[in-house]
Amino acid sequence: MGSALVQRYAAALGARDWDAFATLLADDVVYRLPQTGEVVRGREAFLRYNREFPGAWELTVLDAYGDERGGVLHGDYGVGESQVGVTVLRFAGGRVAEVVDYWPEPYEPPAGREHLTGR
Amino acid sequence: MGSALVQRYAAALGARDWDAFATLLADDVVYRLPQTGEVVRGREAFLRYNREFPGAWELTVLDAYGDERGGVLHGDYGVGESQVGVTVLRFAGGRVAEVVDYWPEPYEPPAGREHLTGR
Repeated sequence: MGSALVQRYAAALGARDWDAFATLLADDVVYRLPQTGEVVRGREAFLRYNREFPGAWELTVLDAYGDERGGVLHGDYGVGESQVGVTVLRFAGGRVAEVVDYWPEPYEPPAGREHLTGR
Repeated sequence: MGSALVQRYAAALGARDWDAFATLLADDVVYRLPQTGEVVRGREAFLRYNREFPGAWELTVLDAYGDERGGVLHGDYGVGESQVGVTVLRFAGGRVAEVVDYWPEPYEPPAGREHLTGR
């Protein structure tokens, strides 16, 4: 069930099908961006955030897993250049109750572990 | 099943119980750090990477979800200051076959969406 909910979430988001997307969300869904501290509270506000999100993006699903409590959407939103996002979803009552979104950026490997890793 | 595998993975990692950790990994497990491009191939190399990873860290599990194909470990590895990591796991044959690790860093919210978000 959870896995299917992640996949419906990804499909509706990727298609910008906001009517379908809305049906997956709890009324009091909370959207969190821990990297900036931003929070969006409630279905209408979260729908508006998504509808008005600027720029061209296309979702390519890399991984979508979940159980009855929550799941993960690992996606690439880039057009041309890759822009990976990782979204942790928490479910309640068969709907998405919390969405925690991460946008990891490239960085140089720390020195001292070259002997442990390759490229 | 998948959810239990994520939880066993988290428990063994958090306890630094490398013998238990090893039993969860496929022989040819691949560990990826997309932000740096680093890759570690194979169970022995991945165990060594973890055993020798420098610094004090303690895993607090924020979320652990999964199904039979894969899952997510959303954790805080910080001691004192928070250091969140998000790990996407792919399973094969009841073991962890791929581990994709992200270390998202704070950033300033882009201008122009203050009307859509709070803090």
